[in-house]
Amino acid sequence: MARRLVVIGGNAAGMSAASQARRRRGRDELEIVVFERSHFTSYSSCGIPYWVGGLVPGPDELVARTPATFRDEYAMDVRLRHEVVAIDLSERLVVAKDLANGGEPVRERFDDLVYAPGAAPVRPDWADGGPAGVFGMQTLDDGAALMGWLDADADADADADADADAEVVAAPRSAVVVGAGYIGVEMAEALVRRGLRVTVVEKSPQPMSTVDPDMGALVRDAICGLGIEVRTGVAVTGLKETDGRVSAVVTDEGELPADVVVLGLGVRPNTDLARDAGLPVGRTGGVVTDLRMRVADGVWAAGDCVETVHRVSGRPVYVPLGTHANKQGRVAGINLGGGYATFPGVVGTAVTKVCDLEVGRTGLLERDATAAGYEYVTAVIRSTNRAGYFPGAQEMTVKLIAERRTGLLLGAQIVGRSEAAKRIDVLAAALWHRTTVEEMTALDLGYAPPYAPVWDPVLVAARKAAAAVEAGQ
Amino acid sequence: MARRLVVIGGNAAGMSAASQARRRRGRDELEIVVFERSHFTSYSSCGIPYWVGGLVPGPDELVARTPATFRDEYAMDVRLRHEVVAIDLSERLVVAKDLANGGEPVRERFDDLVYAPGAAPVRPDWADGGPAGVFGMQTLDDGAALMGWLDADADADADADADADAEVVAAPRSAVVVGAGYIGVEMAEALVRRGLRVTVVEKSPQPMSTVDPDMGALVRDAICGLGIEVRTGVAVTGLKETDGRVSAVVTDEGELPADVVVLGLGVRPNTDLARDAGLPVGRTGGVVTDLRMRVADGVWAAGDCVETVHRVSGRPVYVPLGTHANKQGRVAGINLGGGYATFPGVVGTAVTKVCDLEVGRTGLLERDATAAGYEYVTAVIRSTNRAGYFPGAQEMTVKLIAERRTGLLLGAQIVGRSEAAKRIDVLAAALWHRTTVEEMTALDLGYAPPYAPVWDPVLVAARKAAAAVEAGQ
Repeated sequence: MARRLVVIGGNAAGMSAASQARRRRGRDELEIVVFERSHFTSYSSCGIPYWVGGLVPGPDELVARTPATFRDEYAMDVRLRHEVVAIDLSERLVVAKDLANGGEPVRERFDDLVYAPGAAPVRPDWADGGPAGVFGMQTLDDGAALMGWLDADADADADADADADAEVVAAPRSAVVVGAGYIGVEMAEALVRRGLRVTVVEKSPQPMSTVDPDMGALVRDAICGLGIEVRTGVAVTGLKETDGRVSAVVTDEGELPADVVVLGLGVRPNTDLARDAGLPVGRTGGVVTDLRMRVADGVWAAGDCVETVHRVSGRPVYVPLGTHANKQGRVAGINLGGGYATFPGVVGTAVTKVCDLEVGRTGLLERDATAAGYEYVTAVIRSTNRAGYFPGAQEMTVKLIAERRTGLLLGAQIVGRSEAAKRIDVLAAALWHRTTVEEMTALDLGYAPPYAPVWDPVLVAARKAAAAVEAGQ
Repeated sequence: MARRLVVIGGNAAGMSAASQARRRRGRDELEIVVFERSHFTSYSSCGIPYWVGGLVPGPDELVARTPATFRDEYAMDVRLRHEVVAIDLSERLVVAKDLANGGEPVRERFDDLVYAPGAAPVRPDWADGGPAGVFGMQTLDDGAALMGWLDADADADADADADADAEVVAAPRSAVVVGAGYIGVEMAEALVRRGLRVTVVEKSPQPMSTVDPDMGALVRDAICGLGIEVRTGVAVTGLKETDGRVSAVVTDEGELPADVVVLGLGVRPNTDLARDAGLPVGRTGGVVTDLRMRVADGVWAAGDCVETVHRVSGRPVYVPLGTHANKQGRVAGINLGGGYATFPGVVGTAVTKVCDLEVGRTGLLERDATAAGYEYVTAVIRSTNRAGYFPGAQEMTVKLIAERRTGLLLGAQIVGRSEAAKRIDVLAAALWHRTTVEEMTALDLGYAPPYAPVWDPVLVAARKAAAAVEAGQ
């Protein structure tokens, strides 16, 4: 009899695991059942802002593989609109509700379980059960809901032009984005592209707290240049509504009119089911796995619901990112398919684009380095993406953080205009391999005038950091 | 009394060394005399094609620091148009000819010597002592000579329009570039930009033998798309001339009309002086140094005249590149200034742009791997620079070469349209740290839709190579 794999969550991590398992075990050896709560499988959450902003025509473009593909080509039993509500480890059973069918309960036996329900946007108390028009952004369904809100109103607006007497609501004109992290800033830009007046409200003193304050200041300038109002150091305390629709965001510094609100406060791992089933959850809030992504006998977890190890600090961290979800899912799938693979952790790399500003980071920020107990030196340099004389050369700022005594690279941040952010990759590789800034000065990076000055900005930064280490010793 | 440093060669390596020495030793401690044969110091040879092609207005843009800067700010005695003709190590003397002054000999005593005369374009026998209009491309003087040839003729052409009776030569219309390596291909593009009809003649069966034949074929298509005629497998045997000016290139497959010929056959290290002085020259043709760039007691060498070690093959190699010259010069300067630094070798990274095609390579090619005694697997993948759905996504091909048994990365090549070539840096870092392709699959590279698919092309290639290693074991 074939073994039976049940996958909870049909997005990046779950479907990567299922696909890898299928590659190693044919349909005679392994049955695969996937429960997915939404209408979609294997999609790019990170692409939602570009759909909203009009750079990508529709949600279909964001779907890497459809349920039909998984059914037909991978022989998987993919059940959309099914929400898993319980896991019984001793009985090896999963209970799901068929949402499209009145919540009818479905029970499925498993030999192997992949736990990959992802994460959910953080919703503060003031956003819960409040007026309509408040959106988190994590799933394609979230994106579709926002688009429906924006488009339905646009339709109403068009109708209003045709018949001025019709009772319709005006199209959204003012948006407030709460939180100025990656998603918040990307969504703010998307909404500006749609012609909305956008205010970003951020509790901390600067936007993009995913980089150090000095680098974040550069990002702030760029956001404001796009016409987005950024209100930092401001806390949201509630919402105002008119006829059940949001009309304003209330803050400790007054009200901001808003007929649509987007939450950019990060996400929280979906671990309730795991916790209820007795699976281990770490202090970062994510499910705890071993290096092979195993949680318990025959139980695997991957993606935005798990914690991982930060290779620089050595500490457990929660870093929900599609790229990790894919890798972790692949590792889980290889292992449960009888192969051997490990996910050795992350170094905290992230890149984003804000307007035409590119931002990259990897490793520890200054506050992380301090928290991990490091003393460090920093080096900040300005250079250009191409040889200074080459057409299109644009400025870039690189910051390195290195351990004070040994010069071990601890972290790096880049802000630039073009061909800047992905330079973080070579710094991520340097972190991966525990490199000193002195050794980095010799790295054999590609040089030609269209691509870099003869000293690549990364090397210029390494030289300055190495000098700071030498001076500090 | 101050020590005395004599530097032979005032370009990247020599001036980096001199500058670093100056930073550590003030003018009371160290006198610095620099002999430079040309009219320029510290310039970008790699920028010459962009000057010729009109992307950079003039030679001044290619000069990083002028002789005046070195004199005024670094207190160096910089002597242009001085050609060193002998080094006497026992007497600690250098003899130079003052070219601007009838070759008047000049003798200078030194305590420390930096040998950095660079390299010279390879000139085959058929090019030596032949007609005018044949140019190597290594120094700014070379670039100026070519520009003079092209511009003088353009001026003559303009005059001819004004006065049809004037006896003038026609402006160059046909160029032949001999050699389809980096310089040859870049110069071909530059000449096409100037409106010339350009043929590239290459002895080997394909252009860009700096990448494997399968990747080189992609480059060939791009060059031809620009309207450059590429004749591979064709050997040049001589030149034809009219009134002392070149009129055609003679090949084993017939004649090619040419009123200007550019040599792109690579360069050869300038080591005659070193050899005559008894300094060690390796079998690659370059001067042999230790890791601190020291050749003998108080004698240092750096740049296009030295050989270095390839960190993947472990063999001495000759890799004349501005980026190495700068690093080596810096290391020599730190050491001779009383500090400590090493140049730990190269991994063979190079990037170039041909039309809108980006080409990157690092590590060993297949033929290098074989020559070094490795058995290997290869993986070639196609992916995109950005998420497939993101505007501007363009195809990119990545090839990896990995040791058959261990999966150790041996080399990588990338050909793409945009945001492709500099991805070679993360592969160069992986080579630097001796990484297996299996470990590379986990690298924490930056992901966001404007920058990469959720699996970066580098990771996709690593996965395929890791699978090939697993299958081959």
